[in-house]
Amino acid sequence: MTLVTNIPYDNLEVGQQASLERTVEERDIQLFAAVSGDNNPVHLDAAFAAETMFKERIAHGMFSGALISAAIACRLPGPGTIYLGQQLKFTRPVKLGDTLTVQLEVLEKLPKGRVRLATRVFNQNQEQVVDGEAEVLAPRAEQTLNMPEMPMVTVG
Amino acid sequence: MTLVTNIPYDNLEVGQQASLERTVEERDIQLFAAVSGDNNPVHLDAAFAAETMFKERIAHGMFSGALISAAIACRLPGPGTIYLGQQLKFTRPVKLGDTLTVQLEVLEKLPKGRVRLATRVFNQNQEQVVDGEAEVLAPRAEQTLNMPEMPMVTVG
Repeated sequence: MTLVTNIPYDNLEVGQQASLERTVEERDIQLFAAVSGDNNPVHLDAAFAAETMFKERIAHGMFSGALISAAIACRLPGPGTIYLGQQLKFTRPVKLGDTLTVQLEVLEKLPKGRVRLATRVFNQNQEQVVDGEAEVLAPRAEQTLNMPEMPMVTVG
Repeated sequence: MTLVTNIPYDNLEVGQQASLERTVEERDIQLFAAVSGDNNPVHLDAAFAAETMFKERIAHGMFSGALISAAIACRLPGPGTIYLGQQLKFTRPVKLGDTLTVQLEVLEKLPKGRVRLATRVFNQNQEQVVDGEAEVLAPRAEQTLNMPEMPMVTVG
């Protein structure tokens, strides 16, 4: 059982931060290919990827987008947040085995419960791999949720 | 075996379109929760979702982002494309069973192989659920790839 408490609009402050870390595993690339439908060989075929400018397999760019969305939905502001928009700039490739850190920061509190967040992703060498901003509708009320179990998924 | 031919920069024309259709299944929501780490009950718990403003379970917003990225990577311009950036506006909720159509359109050919694409997603009622734009580096050369098999994934 995992309890998660959100941060309602009134308790959000400009400069407030949250982060989420995740190492990119084989399983992640396989799952992202399956759910998105993007089975490009640069993601799935090591021999093919070795001949590209990346020299090795890379994660799907939008996998980082998925991590950003999870960080927003689970941590800042957390459950009850409504995702209004997201800008993403993919600045460097993400490789199998990279450890990504999603960093969120409250940039601005807008009228009607809306909030602008910085959404940056770094790799284990402190190189930025994604830059961007999100706009969300923050929850009005503080709420502690018992999060459902993660779905059981088997690859292969 | 699926052969996919990309559309290199020189062959892209403003106004050129491509689309991709996908019905949102239980499996998609479970997989997206697993790969993103977002296990919010609004996506996974029907009883909880019934009490929200959405009245029923909704798909993760970034699932539509994943479909857009797949449409770009597999269809327009297709394999060899490098994803530089994406803007997304989530304009309506996506529900289990909705049939989404991702519509891509070449908006502008920029210098140095870059291309600006409209990335719009509609549901089966022709209601727009996502609006946005992508910027990509189009492939230089036409290439026909034998796409790898989709990863085998079992849910539950």
